[in-house]
Amino acid sequence: MNPNPGIDDLPVRAELRGKSPYGAPQLDVPVRLNTNENPYPLPEPLVERIAERVRAAARDLNRYPDRDAVQLRTELAKYLTRTGKYPLGIENVWAANGSNEVIQQLLQTFGGPGRTAIGFEPSYSMHSLIARGTGTGWISGPRSEDFTIDLAGAERAIAEHRPDVVFITTPNNPTGNAVPPETVRALYDAAQAAKPSMVIVDEAYIEFSHGDSLLPLLAGRPHLVVSRTMSKAFGAAGLRLGYLAAHPAVVDAVQLVRLPYHLSAITQATALAALEHTDTLLKYVEQLKTERDRLVRELRAIGYDVTASDANFVQFGQFADAHEAWQKILDRGVLVRDNGVPGWLRVSAGTPQENDAFLDAVRELKKEQSS
Amino acid sequence: MNPNPGIDDLPVRAELRGKSPYGAPQLDVPVRLNTNENPYPLPEPLVERIAERVRAAARDLNRYPDRDAVQLRTELAKYLTRTGKYPLGIENVWAANGSNEVIQQLLQTFGGPGRTAIGFEPSYSMHSLIARGTGTGWISGPRSEDFTIDLAGAERAIAEHRPDVVFITTPNNPTGNAVPPETVRALYDAAQAAKPSMVIVDEAYIEFSHGDSLLPLLAGRPHLVVSRTMSKAFGAAGLRLGYLAAHPAVVDAVQLVRLPYHLSAITQATALAALEHTDTLLKYVEQLKTERDRLVRELRAIGYDVTASDANFVQFGQFADAHEAWQKILDRGVLVRDNGVPGWLRVSAGTPQENDAFLDAVRELKKEQSS
Repeated sequence: MNPNPGIDDLPVRAELRGKSPYGAPQLDVPVRLNTNENPYPLPEPLVERIAERVRAAARDLNRYPDRDAVQLRTELAKYLTRTGKYPLGIENVWAANGSNEVIQQLLQTFGGPGRTAIGFEPSYSMHSLIARGTGTGWISGPRSEDFTIDLAGAERAIAEHRPDVVFITTPNNPTGNAVPPETVRALYDAAQAAKPSMVIVDEAYIEFSHGDSLLPLLAGRPHLVVSRTMSKAFGAAGLRLGYLAAHPAVVDAVQLVRLPYHLSAITQATALAALEHTDTLLKYVEQLKTERDRLVRELRAIGYDVTASDANFVQFGQFADAHEAWQKILDRGVLVRDNGVPGWLRVSAGTPQENDAFLDAVRELKKEQSS
Repeated sequence: MNPNPGIDDLPVRAELRGKSPYGAPQLDVPVRLNTNENPYPLPEPLVERIAERVRAAARDLNRYPDRDAVQLRTELAKYLTRTGKYPLGIENVWAANGSNEVIQQLLQTFGGPGRTAIGFEPSYSMHSLIARGTGTGWISGPRSEDFTIDLAGAERAIAEHRPDVVFITTPNNPTGNAVPPETVRALYDAAQAAKPSMVIVDEAYIEFSHGDSLLPLLAGRPHLVVSRTMSKAFGAAGLRLGYLAAHPAVVDAVQLVRLPYHLSAITQATALAALEHTDTLLKYVEQLKTERDRLVRELRAIGYDVTASDANFVQFGQFADAHEAWQKILDRGVLVRDNGVPGWLRVSAGTPQENDAFLDAVRELKKEQSS
């Protein structure tokens, strides 16, 4: 045996060989608008409340956490009921370490070896990566030129492949556009006719949308799951708190694969503190929506193509060489994201000052590329 | 479709149907000695330090955490180097939300569909459950009547089944006994001859052992992984911080399946605070070892059979009906664990007062069952 092996000298699974880990470059630049983080730090009273709640939790840290996260799920259900225009209780809600872990648990339960999942790409690339990590076959479904879901094409793909899981990301990442409720309803029906499959609506960015959450679609649709996160609207990407809303049977089912005590007492305490400050945090969301709309307007005024955005980020283009454009913007001190969508880049809505810096950079870039 | 389905009406994976979630009953009784928790709350200066570090982390919570947990892995490597008699650096260490997540990542990388893992049972039952959750086939390897690993039998099982992953739990849970280093060396060699396979040594309870950690066996064994946790020795079951030590290529390989940003900024801050207080926490470990040895002595004096223990718990018996005995001990206000090992129960070492209450209960039980 090679005494000093590399990855490929180890007996790793064949499908992992030669692959790279997921992750945006974490570069130290003045303006970071690449990972859709909320630019507003938590308000100081919330920081103090987190310290207070964590101090209390730390006094009991020698004990395992509440395995069922009863208090946290109760408060998340209240938040969803209040903002989602649909009544939900603790029995409808499940939480995990980021929506990535929520999705991983769903694929372990409803996907996995011998099963398949479909997504309409470009979309959130972790869906396909978590499919790979859970041994679920991945089907790349179609999207139109304008990045909307082509309903007829999507229905055909579902009928043809009969996937076990259907992902619908709305607002979609990285393109920013929302999926109309009637499209989700039609895709749900197509998925039930084909298999029946589970349909996961990823609403990570829904609080930034011009429209409403699709939570009311849960009524009478026991195979529908809505996934959410506190990373964006709650300004808590560092907390890693994702959650789902669904029929109680779905919550019961993921118990069969969740790691016991997966959610630490510290995480539960911190999330509860943040939920106490929901109103303040949602005011930041309103500011970000205003800035997002400004970015769309000004990018168009400069002469860029912009995809309609219901998220806290904006997709803009088109570039003959998107990666070169990404580098030129970075050279001006602004980090945006190259998601590999040919011709397009993505910028997160930052503070007004950060957005000004970004707009200056792309204005110069436009001049340079037009001259 | 059934508008109000149960789990089995949903399209869950076939192997999950009819199964129950893992988890000990969380009962509200005066003396809880059932989940091998450390009975000593964190000292107040550490509680304050956690609050202080978390407050600082919360000020940056709108940003994603350090994806690579550089500072935490550096400190964990220092701790292992200091206590494990073997030099390790950050490149040898990886951390996740509990050792369960560490093991899940290892099985996603080296196990999974079409592959198998073996454990020598009775052992930590999460190994087989995580195998199921990751689509890894499970082989139940043999153990002797006295709960030691029968080396010849284990070597035969490895040669016959050629598993991709071999689990060795030392000290073993729920039996408490440690595996001699020469057995681990021999099983590693057998696993390499058969496949080669990865060998995971689960040292969750090693700090309580009379002997040393097996970390020095990592030298020249790139397919060996040692997994650890802060739940027991660091008195931090509520924190969910597990970690592994291995060749750097193993750390590189699990990057391919780890969920990005899986470890929250809050978790990293709390674990770093606990590591600052290592010396104090290891003094509690010494007290628990003394109490564990007392439990072994007194249980034997009462007339019970006791498995030699290198952990913070003790397996005792033998009972004609272990579950009935568990209930009778519970009726006396003491919660121990029935792990389903016929004839045996497991008790965690608590505070001296808790252990006295337990010993009183089993003394009465012995009298009752002898009369």
